Order: sequence, then structure tokens, then C-alpha cells
Amino acid sequence: MKNIFPIVVSLLITLTSLGQKVNEKDSLMLRDIYSTVLTEGKSYQWLDHLSNEIGGRLSGSIEAEKAVNYTKKELEKLGLDKVWLQPVMVPKWTRGIPEYSFIETAPGITSIMDICALGGSVATPDGGLKAEVVEVQSLEQLAAIGKEKIEGKIVFYNRPMDPTLIHTFEAYGGCVDQRYSGAEEAAKYGAVGVVVRSMNLRQDDLPHTGSMSYGDLPTSKRIPACAISTNGADYLSAAIKLKPDVKFFFKQNCRVFPDVQSYNVIGEITGSEFPNKFMIVGGHLDSWDLGDGSHDDGAGCVQSMEVLRLFKKINYKPRHSIRVVLFMNEENGLRGGRKYAEEATMKNETHVFALESDSGGFSPRGFTFDTDTANFEQVLSWSSLFKPYLIHYFEKGGSGADIGPLKNDQIVLAGLRPDSQRYFDHHHASNDTFDAVNKRELELGAATMTSLMYLFDKYGTKSTFETVKK
Amino acid sequence: MKNIFPIVVSLLITLTSLGQKVNEKDSLMLRDIYSTVLTEGKSYQWLDHLSNEIGGRLSGSIEAEKAVNYTKKELEKLGLDKVWLQPVMVPKWTRGIPEYSFIETAPGITSIMDICALGGSVATPDGGLKAEVVEVQSLEQLAAIGKEKIEGKIVFYNRPMDPTLIHTFEAYGGCVDQRYSGAEEAAKYGAVGVVVRSMNLRQDDLPHTGSMSYGDLPTSKRIPACAISTNGADYLSAAIKLKPDVKFFFKQNCRVFPDVQSYNVIGEITGSEFPNKFMIVGGHLDSWDLGDGSHDDGAGCVQSMEVLRLFKKINYKPRHSIRVVLFMNEENGLRGGRKYAEEATMKNETHVFALESDSGGFSPRGFTFDTDTANFEQVLSWSSLFKPYLIHYFEKGGSGADIGPLKNDQIVLAGLRPDSQRYFDHHHASNDTFDAVNKRELELGAATMTSLMYLFDKYGTKSTFETVKK
Repeated sequence: MKNIFPIVVSLLITLTSLGQKVNEKDSLMLRDIYSTVLTEGKSYQWLDHLSNEIGGRLSGSIEAEKAVNYTKKELEKLGLDKVWLQPVMVPKWTRGIPEYSFIETAPGITSIMDICALGGSVATPDGGLKAEVVEVQSLEQLAAIGKEKIEGKIVFYNRPMDPTLIHTFEAYGGCVDQRYSGAEEAAKYGAVGVVVRSMNLRQDDLPHTGSMSYGDLPTSKRIPACAISTNGADYLSAAIKLKPDVKFFFKQNCRVFPDVQSYNVIGEITGSEFPNKFMIVGGHLDSWDLGDGSHDDGAGCVQSMEVLRLFKKINYKPRHSIRVVLFMNEENGLRGGRKYAEEATMKNETHVFALESDSGGFSPRGFTFDTDTANFEQVLSWSSLFKPYLIHYFEKGGSGADIGPLKNDQIVLAGLRPDSQRYFDHHHASNDTFDAVNKRELELGAATMTSLMYLFDKYGTKSTFETVKK
Repeated sequence: MKNIFPIVVSLLITLTSLGQKVNEKDSLMLRDIYSTVLTEGKSYQWLDHLSNEIGGRLSGSIEAEKAVNYTKKELEKLGLDKVWLQPVMVPKWTRGIPEYSFIETAPGITSIMDICALGGSVATPDGGLKAEVVEVQSLEQLAAIGKEKIEGKIVFYNRPMDPTLIHTFEAYGGCVDQRYSGAEEAAKYGAVGVVVRSMNLRQDDLPHTGSMSYGDLPTSKRIPACAISTNGADYLSAAIKLKPDVKFFFKQNCRVFPDVQSYNVIGEITGSEFPNKFMIVGGHLDSWDLGDGSHDDGAGCVQSMEVLRLFKKINYKPRHSIRVVLFMNEENGLRGGRKYAEEATMKNETHVFALESDSGGFSPRGFTFDTDTANFEQVLSWSSLFKPYLIHYFEKGGSGADIGPLKNDQIVLAGLRPDSQRYFDHHHASNDTFDAVNKRELELGAATMTSLMYLFDKYGTKSTFETVKK
């Protein structure tokens, strides 16, 4: 049994180093952060304005520009060291006048369906588009059916999200190829249009939009694509089973305009010890246009703003330069995220930590991390600090789309992971609205993010220390 | 360092015994339970009926009796070994025609307030009650103010729930004395009525009812008590500050009738090995009358019914006799819980485990246990089985009101602990309605309860084995 000794010794060393890290002061700091946000938080008030005074913030829209101006102005009130706009050109796709659709079981016998154009879709012809429907469950099934049976028809992608997956983002990931690539693939087989079952785990009447791509298809080959609600999809599927030659009609009026100027909104508290090492926290300021983008991602924006506000409020002076970045155009281009990373590289700014909140404003459960073992183990050493706040989930995994372009072997990337069970009830739909966000849940998320930022700032990342030694 | 050896050996033994307990079969069983409930669950459909077809189920009401009949009929469809009604006499308090209230800042200058009578309160005089208001933060402050300044006035209890407490039930526990004992105490100082700030962490316009008691006060000394919304409480408080002689008027029409016959609804799968050892799972079928009692506690009832339905569905034959018990009258009497325990004692039925769900139908986080160390450690040995389902919270603490009377030194008591952040937004208010319950969250709770029941049934409790040895 001698060989157990090294394990025991290493265990003791680990425990001792944990003891050093998770100290009383940190525990009190987290208590202060959570109590302050729950009694004097501002995130909910900011979200109220973004959602109810401004509304859905599609890239290139007036609402998006209003949100840029509003959040810049609010950040300027916080007494940060710098607040500025980072210019970025963004795509401008518009929905136009509302879509219209029906199922025709016989000439003149129609059932009206609620649909919405997918983001980036072309319009239908002016008079709309009517054709027979081929229902498929996957891109693979489409290929197996082949051109002969698809040509001239509307392809209906109807694979539902897998309800047995506890992590609903996995269920989303298992379906979203239908929405993103469905039109491109169907067009290759001569389809004239595409209708996609909404990415929603709930049965309801709301169509959910989201980005799609035509890949390399020339403009002339692009076919219109729309989403239908989960109830609508079941109705359409049942209609096809009863009457295989049922026709689907839809009319949509979306357009693409030339790229327009927009901005990432950035605020900074300059670091007291490492002013040239950056830690950022952010969400995306743009949203889809159907709701007001409260969960996706107004919540992440106001929580990120709250992190810096809390540091000022509790008079914590960070060692590193801490930035809040409100990214523009996550939904249909990721131009803001790319721009931020490009400029960071160009200016030789060393980013050591980035945290994104883009999974809704629900009760926080923890974080996922895109990092190496050493940095991840440091995070695990902090986990007991979070336990009183019911934050239990620390796992390796993705972080956030906007901070993804910053990835290199130095930076630690993290994503807030709120409870995800209700998220896809609202995601990209007209019910992604302020009333679906609970104030305390939003605030607890902000406190949880602030706590992690504090710990990373205080203890640094592996790369902080390596670079410091040099 | 020799003294580390015993620790290591004990660690290895623990790990080995964990290895035996948390085996592959259990892991697959939990997978089966969660997948079945998420694809073929029935709890949401049952709750729809209880909430939308029946509605609020105040003890002694027609709705409560409808709920007894409905759930009995539904349990009978499940192919259980026994389904029966356990008679219990319950109090019958009625709200009568809606309450009416206003603040009068000067004769004829009034602001109408939404209030509701507290459960168990007496009515106001027929013409209503109008008096000056004394605002207090606590029963202690009431006593300090004394009879001279209280006599002839309405006492306004305005201590809010503490928003910094992460466990919202603790914040509730820190306030509820105002509602429960406020009238009894104020009457002792000659107050003529009581208005209590609603137990709600959110600012809104909804009054929240709940039980109150007059203790030993003779009927002639009882004064009417109502709840005012959080916004209303702030308004009243501000009005008093501006004009200390502001008057509060309220009229309520509640009545107490003689006790009426009602029932606990019980279903049983008889145990294959220990038919005379009982494990029960339950919630309470009665609710307050303002909403439809979806979270409190329709959710707990349908989740408990689902536990037995799932055992049948996945063809699991429990070793112990498993009962679902839908308790009557938790809200204003606990008669059902007491009756069940009395009859268990009378019939000499050995109960070894009881689980209650009465904290809302939100995303489950884990359980609290009222038990000894040995049984609790067994629970902890199962925790890794729950991790894939994001169930992390296993703590000692309370269980549930209805199962409380079963407590002895043999039984393990447990309570489901869902995310509690939204709970008091709805608790005892008119927005405790079906639309506030998310289907997946409800189902995940049912699966989590079923999983715990399965593990307790399979591995027993300490007392199971002790009694077996005898």
C-alpha cells in the first residue's frame, strides 16, 4: 500500500492550496456582491428600457442604433475609466410587412398558418409561393429522396428537438442544421421553398426565426425559407398524411440592404496592476425582431454592464483591465465579435479572460469553460465559494459565440449557464419579452458573473502569471 | 504520517461501497425514468385539468371535492393495487364577495387598493372598517409602541421579505409571523384591524393570501386581517409619511362554516418483498382560492401521481408498498396530514420513507432531508446518479408540512427542492395559474422524485434493514 502515499501527499497539498485560495475575504466579497445586486441592482431597470422603450434590435435597425446610444450613455454614468464605440459594418436584413401563409387541402379550402421568414431568407415572388410539400426529418433524408421527388416542391423539415436531452442547447444543436442549411440543400434538389419546424421544445403557435445561410448558392438559386410553429408543423404533417397532395402557400417580403455602420459598445475599468492585460465580460446587443430580445440577449448585456457597475459600487479596484463589451450582430453575422478580436490582435492587446452571458436571464446554475486543465482546476478550487448561491455547475464546454474569435492558447473563455428548460420557449420568438424575465433570476446571474470575474481578476489565469514572469 | 493510513483505508472502503451502490443498472433506470417522463409524461395534462377545469381548491369547496373525485378516477386508471379515499373533516372558510379597500387622505379623497382577506380572518362590519393606520415592521415593534397608540387603529405590518436570502423560503420564514400572528397580537393592544404586506419578493399589484390564526382570542376579540400588494404597501407607507392621519378602509365578507367532510386521496402499489413497509410520495390537493393552485400545490400532486404511473409504465415492481397520498387541507389546517399519520399509527403501519413536493413546479435542484447521518450519507452516495440531470442539491433540512406528522426516529422524510426564485411571485396569489408552470420543469421534478423513490425502494432505509433483521 506504499504507493498510496504520493496520492495522499498530493491530496494534502491540493487541500492546502485550496485553503489558501478560498479564503474568508473571498467569501465576504461574494456575499457583498450578491447582496448588493439583490438590493441595489440596476440590470432589470436597464433591461426594461432596452425591451420596452427600444424593443427588438435587429442589426442595422433603428432600434439597434438606439440601443447603442442608450447603453453607451448608461455606461458613461458609471464613472468607468473609458467608454467608447467600436465601429463595425453590419448586414441589414429586414422582414418587411408580415408574412402570410396557409395550407390548402383542396382549391379554396385553406387553413391559415403563422409563419415567419428565417433571418437572411429571400422573399417569395410578389404573389407568394404555392406548391406541394415534401416532409423530411433530416438533410440526409432529403438527399435520399432525391431530385425527382423534390423538384418544384416545398421541403418541410420537421425533426423536433429531442425532449430527452436535459441540456436543451444540445437538443437545439441537434436540430438547427434544418434551419441553417435546409434551404441551401433543398435548392440543390430543385425545391422552390422551405418551411422548417420551429426550434421549440414546447407545443404552441409561435414561429421562431433564426439565422440561415445559402452557402455558395448564386442569388438566382436562392429559395425562400420560413419557420412554422410546433403546433403548425404537427398540423401540416397531419394534413400531408391525410392528403399527400396538400399545398402550402407562403408570402414573405424580406430584403437585404447594403451593409450599414454600427458599433460594439465598450466600457473599461483600467487595471491597477496589469493595465495591459484584459478581462472582458459581454453579451450581444442585437436581437431578432419578433420579440424584444429580453432573454436573447438583452439579459446578457445588462448583466455584463452590472458587473462593472458592481465593481465600482463595492469599491473593488481590479488588478487587470476589465471591459464590458456589448457586441453587435451576433444573430446574423457575428461581425461585432470578429471585429473586437481583430482589433485586439491589431493593437496587440493581451486578453486573458472572457466571459459571455448569452443563454437567457434565467436562474444561474454555473459556467462552462473553454480552457486547459490547469485553469479549469483553479476554477474548481473556487466552487465551494459559490455553493451558498446554489451555483453548482462547473464544466468544460463551450463559452459564447461573440468571444469565440478571441480564442488562443492563452485566454480562458467562459459562458454563464442559466437554467435552460424555458429558454427555447422564447428563443427567437415573439414571446422573448421583458415579462418572461424574473428580476431576481437576472440579478443572481449578474452576481454570479461578477463573482467569477472577481476571482479571475484576483488570482489571475495561468497565462497571466506566465506572462508576468517574462 | 502513519495516521493517514486509516483515513485512506476508510476512503477506499467508502469508494468501494459507493461503487456497489451506484451501479450501471441504476444509471440506466434513471435514464429510463427521465426519458419516459419527458416523452410520455402525464403530469402536465393532469395539472391542466386541476387548474383550468377545476380551479382553486380551498378546503371545503366544491372545487376541492371535484379534485378529490378527479384524482381518484385518474389513479384508478393506472392499474394500481389499491385506490381509496381517506375521510377527514376539514374547516370551511369562505372569502365571500370580493374585498374592497381604499386609502383616504382627506374626506372624499381616496385611492382604491387591491387587498384580500387572510385565510381564517373574520369579516369586517357590514359597512366596512375605517381607521387611522399605525405602521410597524414587526411584532416586537408593535409591543414597543404599546396600547395607547394602537387602540382603535388599523395595524399595518410592512416588513418586506429579505431579498438577500438566496433560499427564498428563508425570506418567507422571516416574514410570515406578521401574517400568521399579526391580528392576534394587534388585537391584544386594541387594534380594530390589520393589513399585512404581501409575502412577495416582487413589486407588483397582487395581494397574497395565506393562513392566519387568532390563537386563544375569544371570538369577540377577533379583528379582521387582510393582505395588501407590495406596491400597495409601499403606497400606503408613503401616504402615512406624507400625512400621518391617513385612514385605511376595508370591507371583507369572509365566513367560517362548520367543518365538512373531505378526503385524502390515496393510491398504492403493494410491495413485492415488504408489503407492510410503506414509502409515500405526496403533495396537497387543496389550495388557496385566488389563483388555481397550479404551483401550490397542483404541481406536487400531479408529480406524485406521476411517480406511481412511471413505476407501472417502466414496469418497475417496488419491494416496499409505495403510496401516493394527495393530502387535503394543508393550507388552513393540515387536517389531511394529521389524519394520515393518525391512521398509520392506529393501523400499526410502518412508514420508512416519505417524500413531499410542495415548493412549486419549477426546475428541480435537489432535496432536503429530515433524517439521521447514516440515511443521509446513503443519499449522498447516490448523488452522482443525479448529476446528468442537473440535480446537485442534497442537504439536511425540512421536508414537507403534510408528511411532518409521520415523523419518528425510523422514517426518512424528504422534500423536493425546485428553483425557488419565482415561487413567491405566485404563492397564494391570483397568478398562481397553469400558464406559470413549464411542462418540462414540472416533468423533470416528477422524474427526480421517481428516481429518489426508486433508490430508496431498492436500497431501503436504515430502519428497513433494522426491522428486517428482527
